Amino acid sequence: MTAVITAFDWVPPFARGQVRDLRVRWALEEAGQPYDVRYLAQGEQKADGHRALQPFGQVPTYEEDGLVLFESGAIVWHIAERHPGTLLPEDTAARARAIEWMFAALNSVEPPLMDRSIATIFERDRPWSAPRLPAIEQRATARLADLSQRLGERTWLDGEAFTAGDLLMISVLRIAAGSGLVEAHPNLAAYVARGEARPAFGRALAAQLAGFTGEPPAAWTQRKERAA
Amino acid sequence: MTAVITAFDWVPPFARGQVRDLRVRWALEEAGQPYDVRYLAQGEQKADGHRALQPFGQVPTYEEDGLVLFESGAIVWHIAERHPGTLLPEDTAARARAIEWMFAALNSVEPPLMDRSIATIFERDRPWSAPRLPAIEQRATARLADLSQRLGERTWLDGEAFTAGDLLMISVLRIAAGSGLVEAHPNLAAYVARGEARPAFGRALAAQLAGFTGEPPAAWTQRKERAA
Repeated sequence: MTAVITAFDWVPPFARGQVRDLRVRWALEEAGQPYDVRYLAQGEQKADGHRALQPFGQVPTYEEDGLVLFESGAIVWHIAERHPGTLLPEDTAARARAIEWMFAALNSVEPPLMDRSIATIFERDRPWSAPRLPAIEQRATARLADLSQRLGERTWLDGEAFTAGDLLMISVLRIAAGSGLVEAHPNLAAYVARGEARPAFGRALAAQLAGFTGEPPAAWTQRKERAA
Repeated sequence: MTAVITAFDWVPPFARGQVRDLRVRWALEEAGQPYDVRYLAQGEQKADGHRALQPFGQVPTYEEDGLVLFESGAIVWHIAERHPGTLLPEDTAARARAIEWMFAALNSVEPPLMDRSIATIFERDRPWSAPRLPAIEQRATARLADLSQRLGERTWLDGEAFTAGDLLMISVLRIAAGSGLVEAHPNLAAYVARGEARPAFGRALAAQLAGFTGEPPAAWTQRKERAA
């Protein structure tokens, strides 16, 4: 049975190319696996029907032969596990290190970068965000300097083989694209560019962007009108 | 060969029982696996020697027969993988769901709870922390309400079997212990208590606490003296 994922039919411009179904689409493309998409209108993700699949009311979900999964990291892991040698090396130690980088991406690098997005996008107008930004950027800068140091001259995090760890790390680094934080480290910027140049990434991104065919919710349109 | 993990020989009182080697110790105890600990004094985690093992200059690390791993989530996964049936079910779908909860703990629940800890501990004296706290707590509250709803009357997240997903979720919920956020949901509070009542958790916690035999760094002592 073809796997079915969920994605949004509309998100604000800043979120296009960032919604987490991209990570799952990318993994499916790397594995050469076709998939179907069930699109949700904004708001539907919080309804009981979707929450039965995703307790936090988010996308993506993944359904396949009666298995229902949420959490993009876990879905990427599941796809990698189902296609040995594509996203997880077969060698035991190399596989453990690839999984290490999956967790490093989601638990050590993503939180400070998401913190910055919260301050600069979602809470941009709150009085505490501007004064707090230097502390946020200091944490993110330290984490990225460490990552750059470890990456060094390697092509991918563990050497010559692209893994699910790279897929998630590059996805996470893309959150900070344009902020200067990644660009401050030429090797990290080149690493992200190498990931984005992969044909599978290109197909995944194009597919996500092509899916935004819905209408913005009324609240968004009203806010835009007030701001204009 | 017995696995070797790293841990601190001293941390401030608020961090005792919270440092992430506890997660690894707990997994090793659940698996009935002996381990050795190499203790680091405060500051040593940032030195080149340790950074060769842990690029972000943190604990824990895990070494075993030439394999070096960092990221407590990845180490817990590795221990679980090495001991089938203890922390990851053998059934394929149940195993995928256990891994889903590992990622949910670390990528969906831990970030808002750590955000609160940053504001109430590490940045307590910064002018933005108090005004920002309601927004932080709103995010954490929403996430925990969803989790409580999903847990319902279950013993563990996926039913009757304790998994690595529970180990990490309970570890993460303990970050907010005493804040009232978890206690607001009796089923979540009982779930944490069930985890803490496991003999393996008790041994892991006692072992972490017993390891704090070092001296505080000079900077800590001076700060305490200034505050007194």
